[in-house]
Amino acid sequence: MTERQSATPSQPGKTTEDITAAVLVIGDEILSGRTKEANAGYIADVLTAAGIRLKEVRIVADEQGDIIDALNALRSRYTYVFTTGGIGPTHDDITAESVATAFGRTIDIDQRALDLMMPYYKARGVELTPSRLRMARIPEGAQLITNHVTAAPGFQIDNVFVLAGVPAIMQVMLDQVLPKLKTGRRLLSETIKVAAPEGDVADIFTEHQRAFPEVTMGSYPDFTGGIIRCELVLRSIDAEHLEDAVAALRQKLSRLGINFA
Amino acid sequence: MTERQSATPSQPGKTTEDITAAVLVIGDEILSGRTKEANAGYIADVLTAAGIRLKEVRIVADEQGDIIDALNALRSRYTYVFTTGGIGPTHDDITAESVATAFGRTIDIDQRALDLMMPYYKARGVELTPSRLRMARIPEGAQLITNHVTAAPGFQIDNVFVLAGVPAIMQVMLDQVLPKLKTGRRLLSETIKVAAPEGDVADIFTEHQRAFPEVTMGSYPDFTGGIIRCELVLRSIDAEHLEDAVAALRQKLSRLGINFA
Repeated sequence: MTERQSATPSQPGKTTEDITAAVLVIGDEILSGRTKEANAGYIADVLTAAGIRLKEVRIVADEQGDIIDALNALRSRYTYVFTTGGIGPTHDDITAESVATAFGRTIDIDQRALDLMMPYYKARGVELTPSRLRMARIPEGAQLITNHVTAAPGFQIDNVFVLAGVPAIMQVMLDQVLPKLKTGRRLLSETIKVAAPEGDVADIFTEHQRAFPEVTMGSYPDFTGGIIRCELVLRSIDAEHLEDAVAALRQKLSRLGINFA
Repeated sequence: MTERQSATPSQPGKTTEDITAAVLVIGDEILSGRTKEANAGYIADVLTAAGIRLKEVRIVADEQGDIIDALNALRSRYTYVFTTGGIGPTHDDITAESVATAFGRTIDIDQRALDLMMPYYKARGVELTPSRLRMARIPEGAQLITNHVTAAPGFQIDNVFVLAGVPAIMQVMLDQVLPKLKTGRRLLSETIKVAAPEGDVADIFTEHQRAFPEVTMGSYPDFTGGIIRCELVLRSIDAEHLEDAVAALRQKLSRLGINFA
């Protein structure tokens, strides 16, 4: 089975394969610092909980060449790609066009999208201007991702999910997409909060990683309250391996007289 | 002058060239959602204010191949690259080794780094363990970036600046690096807050972008307080062009009876 075949969302559910993902954030406003990016962290949480490993995030400008290059690199490398941003009504929203070009598809006003948007606008007495019509432009062969917040849909082509940039709308779209995805074994995680700086435990932690190669271990400094502490995080898809490694590390820390919780 | 030459920080100061940058965030903890990324947004603000255009951000895992691939792609494409994360004392901190490999340089304990770290540890009665010594490993030929918070330095090779992941330390390092950088003309920006949804102004805004091609215009929805509004942002390195475009847009909005501030 090729990676592309394994990525088709026609076979959702748990699998023992490693299911991976990337997020592609599109928008000048993020790169200028004007808007602080928040979607990638949210998607990271949701995917991790679902057993999908987020492996890469890219943020690119509203420039067609940049979007296409990044999208093509990511969609060939990971099981799923989620884009956020650039599907609004204004001239700087060029994500849909760029995705169509990346896939070599045509793009035009989509009747299914119009059918979603028209009643929404009609009920609110809002005019369907040429700019709003742009939001109904969907690449040929894409499936729509509906959005009950503002009606204008996102879409899916192959392993790429094109979502809105406004967090509330992105989240609604992601909720809908999730049940369609194949998910891997959930990565389990345990954190030991150590009342000492990283450097004090780094030697034994490195040794511990060598002793338990099937558990991935990371150390993160913690400077809250002006006190230098750290958190040791152990991760594994195997609950038993994880428990063994955590118990053994707690024993080692106790023996060395290092306080932890 | 080749791009690489123009990137050498031996000629800092203002230039009319387009000075670009990328940020490479390194860390599993960001991709798992455990830690929310904050450095890229901070660096975006600082670079924008300095007249350097942040063009791309990538977040990759603590995996040497991923770090090297991303770094090589970014450093050949942009004037400057700033990496954050992965230079601590633990085994999962592999940024320095990966950067050395990307540049084909050796890496070893650096006496200059030791000279910075030893007095700091001595004053605090902290042991210089093998793990802490790892933080003195610096690629051959790199320049140190000092850090008065925890003494362990970052470093610069060519157009790449390797900074800490802890925000307070990263910010101290960035402060030091900034005066060494060439800066372009600062991108000026004006925001018009419109009391109407994007779709209501998108047509005239598109037309306005066509009329002022030297000013970059973006529209961003604003859903605060449950009211659908938007912000129109106009950007240019030329103050006069920007003022003209803003004044003309305000006139158009007024004529159409659209409220704005």
